[in-house]
Amino acid sequence: MSALAFDIHGRDGEARTGALTTPRGTIRTPAFMPVGTAASVKAMFPDTVRETGADIILGNTYHLMLRPGAERIARLGGLHDFMNWPGPILTDSGGFQVMSLSKLRKLSEDGVTFQSHIDGSTHLLTPERAVEIQCLLGSDIQMQLDECPPYPCTREEAASAVELSLRWAERSQDAFAKRAAAGHALFGIVQGSIHPDLRERSARALMEMDFPGYAIGGLAVGEGPDLMLETLAQTTPHLPADKPRYLMGVGTPLDIVEAVARGVDMFDCVMPTRSGRHGQAFTWAGKVNLRNAAHADDPGPLDPESPCPAARDYSRAYLHHLVKAGEYLAPMLLTWANVAFYQDLMRAVRAAIQEGRLDELRTRIRVAYG
Amino acid sequence: MSALAFDIHGRDGEARTGALTTPRGTIRTPAFMPVGTAASVKAMFPDTVRETGADIILGNTYHLMLRPGAERIARLGGLHDFMNWPGPILTDSGGFQVMSLSKLRKLSEDGVTFQSHIDGSTHLLTPERAVEIQCLLGSDIQMQLDECPPYPCTREEAASAVELSLRWAERSQDAFAKRAAAGHALFGIVQGSIHPDLRERSARALMEMDFPGYAIGGLAVGEGPDLMLETLAQTTPHLPADKPRYLMGVGTPLDIVEAVARGVDMFDCVMPTRSGRHGQAFTWAGKVNLRNAAHADDPGPLDPESPCPAARDYSRAYLHHLVKAGEYLAPMLLTWANVAFYQDLMRAVRAAIQEGRLDELRTRIRVAYG
Repeated sequence: MSALAFDIHGRDGEARTGALTTPRGTIRTPAFMPVGTAASVKAMFPDTVRETGADIILGNTYHLMLRPGAERIARLGGLHDFMNWPGPILTDSGGFQVMSLSKLRKLSEDGVTFQSHIDGSTHLLTPERAVEIQCLLGSDIQMQLDECPPYPCTREEAASAVELSLRWAERSQDAFAKRAAAGHALFGIVQGSIHPDLRERSARALMEMDFPGYAIGGLAVGEGPDLMLETLAQTTPHLPADKPRYLMGVGTPLDIVEAVARGVDMFDCVMPTRSGRHGQAFTWAGKVNLRNAAHADDPGPLDPESPCPAARDYSRAYLHHLVKAGEYLAPMLLTWANVAFYQDLMRAVRAAIQEGRLDELRTRIRVAYG
Repeated sequence: MSALAFDIHGRDGEARTGALTTPRGTIRTPAFMPVGTAASVKAMFPDTVRETGADIILGNTYHLMLRPGAERIARLGGLHDFMNWPGPILTDSGGFQVMSLSKLRKLSEDGVTFQSHIDGSTHLLTPERAVEIQCLLGSDIQMQLDECPPYPCTREEAASAVELSLRWAERSQDAFAKRAAAGHALFGIVQGSIHPDLRERSARALMEMDFPGYAIGGLAVGEGPDLMLETLAQTTPHLPADKPRYLMGVGTPLDIVEAVARGVDMFDCVMPTRSGRHGQAFTWAGKVNLRNAAHADDPGPLDPESPCPAARDYSRAYLHHLVKAGEYLAPMLLTWANVAFYQDLMRAVRAAIQEGRLDELRTRIRVAYG
């Protein structure tokens, strides 16, 4: 039933590089997906996102179902036309944002009832409705609705979330089979908190359902990078070697190269975009806070190693000025530079795997970001 | 002493079209200068401003002297390098913003003392310091410090402002002669409120000082479009026919075509950029408020007649969504569309003058904006 062709072109230890082919285009892996929460990668034109090298972006079901509404987007031709992004789009199920953003949540076997953070209206999200919304959006890669327990949680809570998520995985798959368009795909999501046996149980049960790809959820939720990477290393071996693996919501440049080394193929995170709106930049020499007065008279560019005009054609002094003056151009330039850095990092990751020198790149990133 | 070559290529009634040549490039006239207050045309990349057809932008001496400081910009290579805009820049003298933005102002023969609206620090702006700052910025076209009286004001206040501005014009010219770089120019500013005889007195006295260009100040300050155009028609005949005329801070599309018909060559206004940040768009069919719920399901583009991608490649429904969601992309797209519309308007104005059909264009703009 897989709608995606996943070809692995090279390996370095557990890391893999290759290509995931969708009807809307090919995604080079490992891939980083910029986050386009409310049908926009914040402070960027879609053309510019593409030019940084992003093959795919992520949209948030929770935000889009509330505003402007999935049915409205469908009437307007789907999310790709709506936001003028012709390439592949992955959407989450909305479950994670329901738990982190909405109010008065109530979880049941059926799904989750919640109040909108925008206008207080009440909504029910079920596995079937999450698939329906993602179909209305025209998502190329959908996510099943899952329960992502908070960290820390009891083992019983983690186990219960695994079982509920598995039952929802089946319901999602049934709903998807009934209504999804050809060429679209649905990923299952592995839960299990930091418990290796629960992660194994979750991964194996999903694998039996034969998804075209597997997401790893419930990490980077407060457990810290060491425990995250340890749990990840205990999870990926239980997933099929020939299917893409997506670590949800991760992460820093160091998180990414370390997760790649543990067999992950896809990432998303608000970090490059959100940091850009807060005056922070990612460079090959590490993170730079442009608010810092040390930059006020610095004529040098943000990152001489970057291929991005935003990082090359403006001085740090100017970027500092824009941040201090609250100019729109500050988030515009810094978000652009950050998204470009993340794509440049992924290009370097793919080349390093192909050439068997990922360890060298991991060391470089640890020096800059460790 | 003129550093500018001004060539008139065509006339239609009082209207003229031509080119103003500076060492940094040619300005096609009539010209509209997008406003780059704090070293940025808000929410636009400089490349994009250029691509809309803008030959010159405006910078605000008041804002730049306070933050990041004129001496700092000079150390960093001047305003052009600082903001990555290689084309011509016109700067105002700071006087108008001192009166509209700063606190605790005190006007004397020497100049104006004021407190910064940013940090409350005290500053003195004299005709000599205004020239010095504009030299530090590297401005291609400077403005003299003038006194712009409020509207309404007594005839005595208007007359006093004319005389003080004339004395300051002489001091500005002296200071400019001492320190300005070759190729730079200083404009005198005509004042006189709505009094034709004061306007004539101001224009004739400035003309005797032989400036390379003449600004018309103190209009569009509350007197309304009719009185503005009437005063303008009583002013331009007293200015030299072979020198550029710049109507400061104007205006709407209708103001512009009507002022062009009265012999004005240069304009600046925050309207296209500010409106873009408030969800309003200028189109060939008139002003559009994207906040309006009527656009929520409109699949059509903002302006099918526009050559600008922002006005053509996104639906009104999407723009409405971005405005409602408070996305950065809303001001980015709407500012771009508006600045592009203003440049498109100026292209149409120049062509209409050349072809002797400015009246036709005035009628069209009156239908859309009257």
